[in-house]
Amino acid sequence: MKLAELGEFGFIERIRRAVAGAPGVHLGIGDDCAVLELPPGERLLTSTDLLIEEVHFRREWTDSFRLGRKSVSVNVSDIAAMGGTPRHLYLGLGIPADLPVEELDAFISGFLSACRDYGATLVGGDTCRSPGPLLISVTVEGSAPSAEVVSRRGARSGDGIYASGTLGDSALALRRLLDGSLPDDVSAARHHDPRAQVELGRTLAKARLPSAMIDLSDGLLADLGHILEASAVGAEIEIAALPLSPAFRSALAEAPELIELALSGGEDYQLLFTIPPAREGELAAISTALGLPLTRLGTVTAEPGRLWLRRADGGREAATAKGFNHFSPFGKG
Amino acid sequence: MKLAELGEFGFIERIRRAVAGAPGVHLGIGDDCAVLELPPGERLLTSTDLLIEEVHFRREWTDSFRLGRKSVSVNVSDIAAMGGTPRHLYLGLGIPADLPVEELDAFISGFLSACRDYGATLVGGDTCRSPGPLLISVTVEGSAPSAEVVSRRGARSGDGIYASGTLGDSALALRRLLDGSLPDDVSAARHHDPRAQVELGRTLAKARLPSAMIDLSDGLLADLGHILEASAVGAEIEIAALPLSPAFRSALAEAPELIELALSGGEDYQLLFTIPPAREGELAAISTALGLPLTRLGTVTAEPGRLWLRRADGGREAATAKGFNHFSPFGKG
Repeated sequence: MKLAELGEFGFIERIRRAVAGAPGVHLGIGDDCAVLELPPGERLLTSTDLLIEEVHFRREWTDSFRLGRKSVSVNVSDIAAMGGTPRHLYLGLGIPADLPVEELDAFISGFLSACRDYGATLVGGDTCRSPGPLLISVTVEGSAPSAEVVSRRGARSGDGIYASGTLGDSALALRRLLDGSLPDDVSAARHHDPRAQVELGRTLAKARLPSAMIDLSDGLLADLGHILEASAVGAEIEIAALPLSPAFRSALAEAPELIELALSGGEDYQLLFTIPPAREGELAAISTALGLPLTRLGTVTAEPGRLWLRRADGGREAATAKGFNHFSPFGKG
Repeated sequence: MKLAELGEFGFIERIRRAVAGAPGVHLGIGDDCAVLELPPGERLLTSTDLLIEEVHFRREWTDSFRLGRKSVSVNVSDIAAMGGTPRHLYLGLGIPADLPVEELDAFISGFLSACRDYGATLVGGDTCRSPGPLLISVTVEGSAPSAEVVSRRGARSGDGIYASGTLGDSALALRRLLDGSLPDDVSAARHHDPRAQVELGRTLAKARLPSAMIDLSDGLLADLGHILEASAVGAEIEIAALPLSPAFRSALAEAPELIELALSGGEDYQLLFTIPPAREGELAAISTALGLPLTRLGTVTAEPGRLWLRRADGGREAATAKGFNHFSPFGKG
């Protein structure tokens, strides 16, 4: 079936029927606005992301189901970074005329499966045709008790710098795809179907452990740079401390320059956070409980904006925040 | 200056500096999420819209400042339709590489000027390059006391059907532009810089007058059709009752078939609402106070989904909801 036959309202009606109600959702899909209620005393947390074909993804590299899942996860990751619980999602779709309805159905199935994983509900959106690329716009609303919201602003000199999981896997998969070769399964899964670290974010926030937190979407150096700027501090990172997966390590053994991907690759969707020294001891139990590595990468320093990389030989070099520049034709700014 | 030189973070920083704080905005642009607080006891109302170049607008027909304003107004109109107060906006931009920074600055100026008009604040967004058209994604959050939220669901047989303002002006301007001729100034202003009827929506909701309400974005027949479907009722509309501007009337005198634009043209961004008969008398004072025509178009009937058009000669015909179909190559579904 072609989308022009089904029509905008037919398509929306199919989605509406697939979504169940949820507590706090007084009106979902099917009115001018969604009508919602947050738990009493909680702050509203909202974030929005665009995913554009040929910029953020290629349809030939992924399937529609995982693209739907990833569209949710990259957005929910921003809620995790504030220590919040994701609640409501909004999906804007600009759809090329030639996209089969079956592909759209798979995308929606993936989108809804990820919503279920995170306990969130699709409550609104907008659909129209696109004259060019497939366009995906996702907005997420979450909430957290006001005293538990974690911003980028609170890092202090002496705090430990930590990352969850491993770094560079997604960027390694993307590098393979760009080279025309096949990524290993672990890296490919990290790239096509990343998991937002909601449980970790909530656990840390509830314990009021992090002085600052951000999700790793633009690359470690760029995202750490955002914390340093917002907190007016500096940092020193030990390159040897970067948490790397076995697949990444074996790639690195063949091509040492790939360490750049763990430093600046982007799309890790892990959490990067700073912890006051007196409380660093509490992390081990959380890591064990969640079955998730939490690795100390370095230390916050006093000099605003100054970011040093400590090499394995003991020397150090000044780093610049070389995150993804979406406006540069070469990606890196 | 080209956008690639300014970079994503440079561009966001320019926007951030142009936005003032507001009550209830604990964190705006510059963290993973905006952190917000609604007035106690109010429901959260959220809506999202996509505006895509060559689908919703052409850059040659409008200037960037008014495009920025319209991007806000069409979204805020959904808050007005629920009886709410608009509070927070989120802007996603997919930007063609060749778009001059000056155009972007004009767009942002227009966007922020409309935010100020509605008393709302830009608190977040996402920017990236677009490989094709200019892409605009806007999400708005508003709120209303829970007892005052108006949905599409409450229309009852015997209720009067009302529209604010005049109908068809925006569609007339679009028709002229598509024909390659120049629209009159009034119609052009309605098309390029519509005003969301927030004050009317709030006034009606506060008085708990409307049994159902919607904003006129897809065209009178299509949007009335949404109310009929959600409320499981029918309607009869008097064609002679349609509120038309002087400019529209003079166009109609030359081409009577243009009445179709008032019935199905779309983008009026007026409010369409139903009022129980016992309370219709209260509308005149509101119309006078706001300086805005509120016109009775017809009556809600009992037969679900049945929409009759009463002609000036007394005869009637069954109407179908011929609103804009964004997936049809010809626009109309």
